[in-house]
Amino acid sequence: MVKYKSRLDIVFAALAHPARRTILARLSHGDATVGELAQPLAMSPPAVTKHLKILERAGLIRRSRSAQWRPCRLELAPLRTASEWIEEQRKQWESRLDRLENYLGDMNKEERGDDKAD
Amino acid sequence: MVKYKSRLDIVFAALAHPARRTILARLSHGDATVGELAQPLAMSPPAVTKHLKILERAGLIRRSRSAQWRPCRLELAPLRTASEWIEEQRKQWESRLDRLENYLGDMNKEERGDDKAD
Repeated sequence: MVKYKSRLDIVFAALAHPARRTILARLSHGDATVGELAQPLAMSPPAVTKHLKILERAGLIRRSRSAQWRPCRLELAPLRTASEWIEEQRKQWESRLDRLENYLGDMNKEERGDDKAD
Repeated sequence: MVKYKSRLDIVFAALAHPARRTILARLSHGDATVGELAQPLAMSPPAVTKHLKILERAGLIRRSRSAQWRPCRLELAPLRTASEWIEEQRKQWESRLDRLENYLGDMNKEERGDDKAD
């Protein structure tokens, strides 16, 4: 087994908390400061900062180093990677169902053929 | 803040482990028993069972109660919910970028208009 944490491990773990998803949903509307993010969450700025660090480590947000208020910005790439992984499994599963349906369809046709021959 | 764990919390947390993602990827090709899932993971069946319980709690798999080997089956609904959440943030962010681009385009046009008026 892989021992180190992969990017997908870190991204999915970061998405597994409602406060962090609320932060990302807010940032999808535009950049925001810690204070702006803390308000709707009814959390203290230090509590928000803790969540921001997890999001930053996952690459899901970027924080400005230069500006005084260090606004946060959403980063799309890790969301895209996570979404692509999920979609791959869905597609695989759905194509398997399609194959199964075709197979059952063929079986039914064969059975009907046999009935006619009787 | 919400105190109880929501479905999305549990689903994303379940996806945050490489062994569990490998199990889901295997099941996207068809149902499998614990033994079949354990082999490519080089894990003991009890270790796999631990991961299966987490996946089952998240609703990502279902295990047959009646069959002797209790094969596991992938369940699409939670993957769909997770994927939809991610896509919502992406769309929101992309439409924001489009609006920003239009705004900058309009500003440029106005500037060019000013230049002509000079």
